[in-house]
Amino acid sequence: MELINFLSKPSDFSRRTGPNDKIVLSSRVRLARNIRGFAFPGFAKKAERVRAFEVLRPAIEATAAMADRFAGSMDTLDALDKQILVERHLISREHAAKGPGSGIVFNHQEILCVMINEEDHLRMQAIYPGLQLKKAFAAIDALDSDLESRLDYAVSKDLGYLTACPTNLGTGIRVSAMLHLPGLVLAEQINPIIQSVNKLGLAVRGLYGEGTEALGNIFQVSNQMTLGESETDIVARLDKVLAQIIEHEENGRQSLLEKKPKVLFNHIGRAYGVLSNAYSISSKETMNLLSLLRLGHDLGFLPGVERALVDELSIVTQPAHLRKKFSDELQPEERDLLRADMLRERLAGVPRPQCKALGDDASLDKPQE
Amino acid sequence: MELINFLSKPSDFSRRTGPNDKIVLSSRVRLARNIRGFAFPGFAKKAERVRAFEVLRPAIEATAAMADRFAGSMDTLDALDKQILVERHLISREHAAKGPGSGIVFNHQEILCVMINEEDHLRMQAIYPGLQLKKAFAAIDALDSDLESRLDYAVSKDLGYLTACPTNLGTGIRVSAMLHLPGLVLAEQINPIIQSVNKLGLAVRGLYGEGTEALGNIFQVSNQMTLGESETDIVARLDKVLAQIIEHEENGRQSLLEKKPKVLFNHIGRAYGVLSNAYSISSKETMNLLSLLRLGHDLGFLPGVERALVDELSIVTQPAHLRKKFSDELQPEERDLLRADMLRERLAGVPRPQCKALGDDASLDKPQE
Repeated sequence: MELINFLSKPSDFSRRTGPNDKIVLSSRVRLARNIRGFAFPGFAKKAERVRAFEVLRPAIEATAAMADRFAGSMDTLDALDKQILVERHLISREHAAKGPGSGIVFNHQEILCVMINEEDHLRMQAIYPGLQLKKAFAAIDALDSDLESRLDYAVSKDLGYLTACPTNLGTGIRVSAMLHLPGLVLAEQINPIIQSVNKLGLAVRGLYGEGTEALGNIFQVSNQMTLGESETDIVARLDKVLAQIIEHEENGRQSLLEKKPKVLFNHIGRAYGVLSNAYSISSKETMNLLSLLRLGHDLGFLPGVERALVDELSIVTQPAHLRKKFSDELQPEERDLLRADMLRERLAGVPRPQCKALGDDASLDKPQE
Repeated sequence: MELINFLSKPSDFSRRTGPNDKIVLSSRVRLARNIRGFAFPGFAKKAERVRAFEVLRPAIEATAAMADRFAGSMDTLDALDKQILVERHLISREHAAKGPGSGIVFNHQEILCVMINEEDHLRMQAIYPGLQLKKAFAAIDALDSDLESRLDYAVSKDLGYLTACPTNLGTGIRVSAMLHLPGLVLAEQINPIIQSVNKLGLAVRGLYGEGTEALGNIFQVSNQMTLGESETDIVARLDKVLAQIIEHEENGRQSLLEKKPKVLFNHIGRAYGVLSNAYSISSKETMNLLSLLRLGHDLGFLPGVERALVDELSIVTQPAHLRKKFSDELQPEERDLLRADMLRERLAGVPRPQCKALGDDASLDKPQE
């Protein structure tokens, strides 16, 4: 398959399932690596970056894990295709802005992906649906070992792997999970949870990483420290904290269902009503309402809908995906119309949410709370 | 029928039809009259107001037009029933606050209604569905003549009928129409229209009269001057201006449909989506969304719904109507839940709006504007 064809069809990542995938959308482990004899990408001149790229790309393509792969230089991809890769969480926004000497290699399953000459010479990630940090670490660790046998990594005996930014020094590892936390947001418990997680030395970010907004009640939790702790310890620590956040989110949902069911139903019902009847809708509103539809599904109120549909819609309604499908020339207002058409069409057969309070159907007929 | 039973069932005013009732909800003519030998209600002491009431009420009850009637003193009606009368536009908010010595007489059809000792001794109105100002004037004129033969009206040869406020002096007439103008509001043409109407010496007010908000895109247009112009001239002048406003509203709707159909569909679709799926909704949001549903019906996008249903819902979802139906003790948040339950239930069988651009069905599949 050509990269161009891959980018034109919806990713099948949203159809995959994993442990705890009601709450954990994906688990990701990323390693930062650099090679000796080349300046860090941010300091290197273009010619040096291109030389590094010519060493790095064939090494990655030679690994066993990348036997079936897409590969490209950032200057051969057009701007729209780069945005598609951002919306699929394969590359960072910063990497999308890069040109000659920067590139990407990722396997057909979209599990393994390596950015070449982003902030470091190599930024490699493994991403799995649901809570599977150990599996993700094992996958990226295998790729890393394979690459280490082919490349001369920049390592210091004292400091470990050298990286462009000191926050990645040592293990160069960032372990993260993308969490769907509508229960904690609706129950207004999200801020204390974020504060507690921060105190444990973990970072909480929005949908597209550092400095981005928590659209659609989606939060990314990751380790901050990369020095002085082993990779397996970091993974184990994050796993432990995630288990606690999952429990809080489950309790939050349960508590809303028991104590404020109508507040919950009101959010889910309105989200369904607007998504399936609007004729113009922004990307941001779509993300936020699809989050509530996903919650409605998870609570059993939307028997007519599959979670994969909701997850797919949250990708294919993004700006670059719409431009790819319809026209690169689309203006934002035109995208809002086409997005609404797509949502109405895909949700046309979905019956109204059947919201029911826990163990008490009659409660629908009398005031709650 | 007892007044208490009348107040417990929905008014059937919303099932009536009249000319131009897509735009003109109702036509109303009200006369202010006072009788000789009694101070105006605002100046009279309680005993004097009670004496006046005892003269006025039997006189009104004796008229031919009020043969089938409900009558009551404001101190015998409880606060909730008075609010019901306000929500049905039979009495003013100010009158609802009155006690002994003030009262109401209205006929079973809810066409004729007389407030006793509101701002004047008598405030009598005739109200008809659609644009029927002449008919409303004829009805109230007949009642007025009948009453004039029974009571000693306060009239000055020079000034005409004397009234508590000089703005009513002379004819004591206020001719008004309740207009549904969503087209002009959505096309952002409502303010210039209001300014033009004001320049013609007419007033434009909100749903519950002077100083109230234009909820649900409903505007009341009425004469300001009561002196120096005959009643029939005032009616004729208002009729002429209303014909122009109706034309502007029709043009506004047509122009939206031709130039910005998706903007229009978006409003109607979202209104339907929220009204039929919310589990909590305020009175204000309900009024505004029902206005859009009414517009959707008028444009032929809601074949499954009758206008009478929309109009009835806009009355029965009002706070006092909900308290009357469920419990006087209802708190605002509880009303919001019951209102949403009622709307979901009544709209459960209504299929999604079938919004179509004028003469171009294919236009739904491509961006507009």
